[in-house]
Amino acid sequence: MKTGKLNKITDVAGVRVGHCTLADGTIQTGITVIMPTCDNVFFNKVKAAQYVINGFGKTTGLMQVDELGQLESPIALTNTLSVGRVQDALVGYMIDRCQREGHNLESINVVVGECNDSKLNNIAKRTINAQHVEVAIDDAKADFELGSVGAGRGMVCYGIKGGIGSASRLVELANHTYTIGTLVLTNHGKLNQLTIYGNKIGDKLKDELISKQSDDVEKGSIVVVIATDAPLEARQLKRICKRATAGIARTGSEFGNGSGDVVIAFSTANRVKHSFNKVDSQQLQTYQFLLDSALDPLFSATVNAVENAIISALENAETVGEVKCLAELRNLGF
Amino acid sequence: MKTGKLNKITDVAGVRVGHCTLADGTIQTGITVIMPTCDNVFFNKVKAAQYVINGFGKTTGLMQVDELGQLESPIALTNTLSVGRVQDALVGYMIDRCQREGHNLESINVVVGECNDSKLNNIAKRTINAQHVEVAIDDAKADFELGSVGAGRGMVCYGIKGGIGSASRLVELANHTYTIGTLVLTNHGKLNQLTIYGNKIGDKLKDELISKQSDDVEKGSIVVVIATDAPLEARQLKRICKRATAGIARTGSEFGNGSGDVVIAFSTANRVKHSFNKVDSQQLQTYQFLLDSALDPLFSATVNAVENAIISALENAETVGEVKCLAELRNLGF
Amino acid sequence: MKTGKLNKITDVAGVRVGHCTLADGTIQTGITVIMPTCDNVFFNKVKAAQYVINGFGKTTGLMQVDELGQLESPIALTNTLSVGRVQDALVGYMIDRCQREGHNLESINVVVGECNDSKLNNIAKRTINAQHVEVAIDDAKADFELGSVGAGRGMVCYGIKGGIGSASRLVELANHTYTIGTLVLTNHGKLNQLTIYGNKIGDKLKDELISKQSDDVEKGSIVVVIATDAPLEARQLKRICKRATAGIARTGSEFGNGSGDVVIAFSTANRVKHSFNKVDSQQLQTYQFLLDSALDPLFSATVNAVENAIISALENAETVGEVKCLAELRNLGF
Amino acid sequence: MKTGKLNKITDVAGVRVGHCTLADGTIQTGITVIMPTCDNVFFNKVKAAQYVINGFGKTTGLMQVDELGQLESPIALTNTLSVGRVQDALVGYMIDRCQREGHNLESINVVVGECNDSKLNNIAKRTINAQHVEVAIDDAKADFELGSVGAGRGMVCYGIKGGIGSASRLVELANHTYTIGTLVLTNHGKLNQLTIYGNKIGDKLKDELISKQSDDVEKGSIVVVIATDAPLEARQLKRICKRATAGIARTGSEFGNGSGDVVIAFSTANRVKHSFNKVDSQQLQTYQFLLDSALDPLFSATVNAVENAIISALENAETVGEVKCLAELRNLGF
Repeated sequence: MKTGKLNKITDVAGVRVGHCTLADGTIQTGITVIMPTCDNVFFNKVKAAQYVINGFGKTTGLMQVDELGQLESPIALTNTLSVGRVQDALVGYMIDRCQREGHNLESINVVVGECNDSKLNNIAKRTINAQHVEVAIDDAKADFELGSVGAGRGMVCYGIKGGIGSASRLVELANHTYTIGTLVLTNHGKLNQLTIYGNKIGDKLKDELISKQSDDVEKGSIVVVIATDAPLEARQLKRICKRATAGIARTGSEFGNGSGDVVIAFSTANRVKHSFNKVDSQQLQTYQFLLDSALDPLFSATVNAVENAIISALENAETVGEVKCLAELRNLGF
Repeated sequence: MKTGKLNKITDVAGVRVGHCTLADGTIQTGITVIMPTCDNVFFNKVKAAQYVINGFGKTTGLMQVDELGQLESPIALTNTLSVGRVQDALVGYMIDRCQREGHNLESINVVVGECNDSKLNNIAKRTINAQHVEVAIDDAKADFELGSVGAGRGMVCYGIKGGIGSASRLVELANHTYTIGTLVLTNHGKLNQLTIYGNKIGDKLKDELISKQSDDVEKGSIVVVIATDAPLEARQLKRICKRATAGIARTGSEFGNGSGDVVIAFSTANRVKHSFNKVDSQQLQTYQFLLDSALDPLFSATVNAVENAIISALENAETVGEVKCLAELRNLGF
Repeated sequence: MKTGKLNKITDVAGVRVGHCTLADGTIQTGITVIMPTCDNVFFNKVKAAQYVINGFGKTTGLMQVDELGQLESPIALTNTLSVGRVQDALVGYMIDRCQREGHNLESINVVVGECNDSKLNNIAKRTINAQHVEVAIDDAKADFELGSVGAGRGMVCYGIKGGIGSASRLVELANHTYTIGTLVLTNHGKLNQLTIYGNKIGDKLKDELISKQSDDVEKGSIVVVIATDAPLEARQLKRICKRATAGIARTGSEFGNGSGDVVIAFSTANRVKHSFNKVDSQQLQTYQFLLDSALDPLFSATVNAVENAIISALENAETVGEVKCLAELRNLGF
Repeated sequence: MKTGKLNKITDVAGVRVGHCTLADGTIQTGITVIMPTCDNVFFNKVKAAQYVINGFGKTTGLMQVDELGQLESPIALTNTLSVGRVQDALVGYMIDRCQREGHNLESINVVVGECNDSKLNNIAKRTINAQHVEVAIDDAKADFELGSVGAGRGMVCYGIKGGIGSASRLVELANHTYTIGTLVLTNHGKLNQLTIYGNKIGDKLKDELISKQSDDVEKGSIVVVIATDAPLEARQLKRICKRATAGIARTGSEFGNGSGDVVIAFSTANRVKHSFNKVDSQQLQTYQFLLDSALDPLFSATVNAVENAIISALENAETVGEVKCLAELRNLGF
C-alpha cells in the first residue's frame, strides 16, 4: 500500500504533533501532543472511538469518547504518574483558548494516554508540569520528530529503545483517496518477541542483551492514535481501533498482563458543532459515511500503518542510558 | 407526553406485529413477530442496537446487530426452549422470501428473543414449529392484540399474568414529530415489587396471592423492542435501549439474577441498502441524524413508553391456569 | 430491609469517608474521599468493578478497575474541572504513603469521580489543590457528614440542593449478615422528575421553582460508590453496579444525555496481595465467593440503598445560594 | 513451548471432540461438537468467557456465558444457516440427557458457533438435522480428526482449504503443569494474507490461484474454542480469549468486515454445581485461582496454540471441489 507524503499521522490534513522532551540525567521523559484539527476542536468536534486491548493503564477521557462518539480536545501522551497534571494542564489550556475565542468553558473532556518510563526515568519525581504541555502544543507541526522524543523519551519497547513512531497509508475508494495515519507511543513487549516485518530478530538478540538491559518481564504499554479523513461514524472507528491489535501483534506482542494497550481513533471528515443552545441542539445534521462493506481496505491500511509506526519508533530511537537502540544493535552486526 | 394513535409500537409507520397463540391444556405458549418495515428489511436494512441489562437469557442475533448497527430480519419472540427452531424457521422464511424477490440468500442474521413460560406451559414438550412462525408473520398488522397472546400466552409478570404489552409516545423536535414505540414480552419480577404508575400494589396483593400462585423467586425475563422514526444512528439507539432500564425499574423490577432482560431498538429513518457487489459497497451514503444534545425528550419518551407497555401487558392479560390477571384481581377488590 | 448502625457506607467495616469543603462566595465546591480499607489498599487490594450508565463524564481510573477487577487506591470525588489535579494529588499521597511503608511506587491506578457544580461554583477558577485532598483524607471517619459538604457542596439535584448521601442495608444469607453500603454524589435530574419514595413531588414543586432556580435542562451527573463485605468477585460486583440504575430510576431520573452516571463497587471480603515479585505472582490464591443464584437479596439491598442514599443527600443538604434545599421547601409547605 | 501429548484441545483432561461429516456432491458440510467435561456439564458447570473480535456472525449462547461466567452445555460448530436447528438439537439432547439423569430441564443455554461454507456447500438446502448432532456427540473422543471434517468440511481459509484445527501448549507455574488447548474452525482470510509461521506464502501463491478459486473478498469467519485446566475465573478467561486475536493475526488475518471472529474459553479447574434449590444457592463456594500477574505464560501459550491450531487445520485439510489444500499446493512445488 502507498504511504502518504511524510509517512506520518500528519498526512491526514489538519493533524499536527508537538513534543516537549525532558532529558537530563535520571530525568528522561516528556509530553507528546496530537492536535486533531487546525481550528479549535471543542467548537467543531471530530467523530471518535476508543478500544482497550488490555486495560492495565491510566488513560483518561475514554469514557466520554465512547458515549458520545466524539473527541473535543487535543490528545496528550506522557508518563504514567504525570497523567493527572497533564490532564489538568490541558484543561487549563482549553479554558484559556476557548475564553480567548469567546466561550466560557465549564466542561471539557480531555484525553491523556500514558506508558510507564520508570526504567529510564525517575518517574516518582514527577518533573512534568503545565508549562511543558504548552511547549508541546506550541511545537505542533506536520513534520514532527520520531523516536526518543516527547513522551517517547524514556520508553523501552521489546527490550530495546522505544518511543514515538508514526506512519500513514493511502486507500482508493470510489474515486476518493483516503488517508489512515497512525502515531504510537511504544513501551511494550519482551525482547524475544521482537519481529521486524516478519523477521523474528528478538530471539537472535536475546542472548546478547537479556542479561544487561532487560529483565524480560512485560511491564509495557502501547498507546495507538489513529487519524483518518475517511468519513466514518464512531461505531466504524471502533472497528478501525480493533484492527490496531493485528498491527501490534505483527511486531511480536502477546499483550502481557501488565501492559496498557489502548487505541484511539478519530475522523476529520464529519465535524460536529458544539451545541451552545437548545435551537442548535435540535437541528438535524447531515453526514456522509462509508458503508461497512467498504471498510476492508481501511482495515488493511490500519494494520499496516500500525505495524509500520511501531517499527518507525524503533528505527528512529536513539540509545538512552543502558537501553540500546535498534540502529546501534544493527551497527553491532545484529 | 402524547401517545400515538393506537398507543402501540405500530404507531411507527411500517411496523406491524403478528401472533400465533397455542392454548390447549398444558400447552400455553406462542410466537410474536415484529416486522420492522413493510418491505423486505434484508434488502433495505434499518439502523439498530441492542443492550443487555441482565444476560441470563438465550436471545440470538444480538452480536451482529451490535457490530454492524443494523437489523436485517423480523424479530421473533417465543419461549426459552424454542429459540432454535424459531430461529431456524425465520431463516427459512427469509430464504424463501428473498428467493421469490430474486436473491439467493446465503447469510442472514435473525433476531429471536425469549422468556421462560414453564410455570404455565409444558415447555420441554417444545410444541412450537415452523408453521407457527408463518402463522404469526401472516397475522402481522398495525392493530394487533395485547395480553395473553402470542409469545405472551404463558408468561407470568410480578406474580400475576403477564404477556405482550405495547405503547407509544410522540416527541416534537424542531418542527418534526417523532414517534417512539415499544413492545414488551413481560415475564419478570416478583409480586411484592409490582408498581402501577407509582402505586406499589404488589405489597398489598402479596399476602392474598403469594401462597397460591407464586413462589416469589425471580425466574423472570423481559424482552423490550423499541421502534422509532427518529433519525438515530446505532450508537444513539444503544443509548435509547439503556433508558428502557428506567422504564422497567418504574414498574418495580430489581433485575433479578435469573432474569434475561434484553432491549433491542431500531430506527426506520435511514435505510441501508444491502451491498450486492463491490460497486454498491463503495458509494458514500448520506444520512440525517439528530445530535445527541437533542435526545433528552426521546429518552423521556422511551422511559414512559416502556413503563406504559409493561402495564398494558398486565392490564390486557387474561387469567391463564392458576395465574390471575390484573383485571380479575381488581374485580376482587384489590 | 434493615439498615446498618449508621445507615451509611461506613457500616461496611473498614470503610471511612472524609470531606474538604470550600464555601466562600462564588467558590462552593470540595472533595470527598472514600477510604476502602483501614490499611493501605495498594498492598492488599479489594475486588472491584465499575459500570457506566451514561458516559458524559470525566471519571478516571475505571479502565484498570475493569481489566483487573480490583481497586488499589482511595476513591476521590470532586468537581468536573478539578479531576486532573485531584488525581495528581492522590497519586502523590499514595507515593508518599507507600514510601513511608517501604515501597517505591512506580505505578498506581487512582479513581476520581466528578460532577459539574458550575451552577453554584465558579468552576473555571479551579480553586481545589493538593492540600485539600490531604485535608479530606485526614478527615476520613465512620460517622461522616452528609449533604452540602465535600464534593457535594455545589451540587444541584432534581433542581434542588443536592450533595453527598449515603445509606446501608443488611442481608442475611446462610447464617451470615452481609452489608451493602452506598455513597452518592448527586447532581442529576430535572425538578419535574423528583420522586421521594414513590411520591412524585417534582411536578408539584415545578411551577413554584422553575422560573427561579432551574432552567430545567439536564446537565446532571451522579457518582455512586458501593461497598460491601459480601464475598463477591469482580464479575458479580459489576452486576451489583448495574442494579444502582434501578435505585437512581426510583428517584425519577431518566438518565439525561448530559449526565455522567457512573457506578463503582468494591468488596472488602477477599483481599488480593500486591505481587512484588515473581514468586508472589505464581502462588494459587484461595477465595470464597457467593453463587450468582444467591445474589437477589444483595441486588435488592443495592437498589434500596442507592435510592435511600440519593434521598439522604437531598434531606441533609442545606440551601446554598439560590438553590433551595428540600428542608426549606418542606418548611414552605410543599 | 512444549505441546501436550496429542497437540490437541483434548490434552485438557476430560475434553472430547466429535464430528459428523456430510460429503456428497454439492453437500459439503457438517457438525463438530466439543464436550467440555466427561460428566454432564449442566450439573457441574465450568467457568467460561467469550470475546467477539468481529461480530459479523450468528453464534448463539454468548450472552449468558458473559453474564454468568460459566458454560453449561457442549459447544457445537456448524454452517451459518444451520445454527438454529443445531441449537434446537442440542437443547433436545440436553433435555433427554438430564431427564435420564433425574432432572427435568426447563432452561438451558447452549453455545453454537458457525462459519459460512457456501463456497463449497449448498448452504441454503440446510441438510443438517438433529440426528447429525447425535452422531457428532457419539463420536466424541480424545484423538479426533482434523482438517476437512465435521463443521470444517466445506470451509475455505486464506483462499485454500480450511477446516478443523487444534493444538495445545503446556505451562509450568509454581510446580504445576497447566495445559492450554485450542480448537479452531477456520474459514477466514484472503489468500494474499496467508502466513505460515512467519512465512508469507500467500503472496507467492496468489498469482497462481487467485483466478481459479478465490474472488479475494473476505467473507470469512473463524471460531476459536480454548480449553484449560488452569484455575482461572471468568474475567481472566476473557483476557485469555482476547489473546487469540494475536494468534490469528500471526497467520495473516486483518479481521475483515464480513468475518465473524469469535472466541470462547473455559476452564475445567473450578466446577460450579447447578443450584437446584435455595439452600444450595446460599452456600459459600471456595475456589482457587491464579493471580493476574501469573498470566503471561498462559497468554503466550494461547497465542501459540491458536496460531498452531489454524496451521494444523490447513495442513490436515484435503482438497474439496475446486479449493486446493495446502498439501496439494506443496506437492505442486509452492
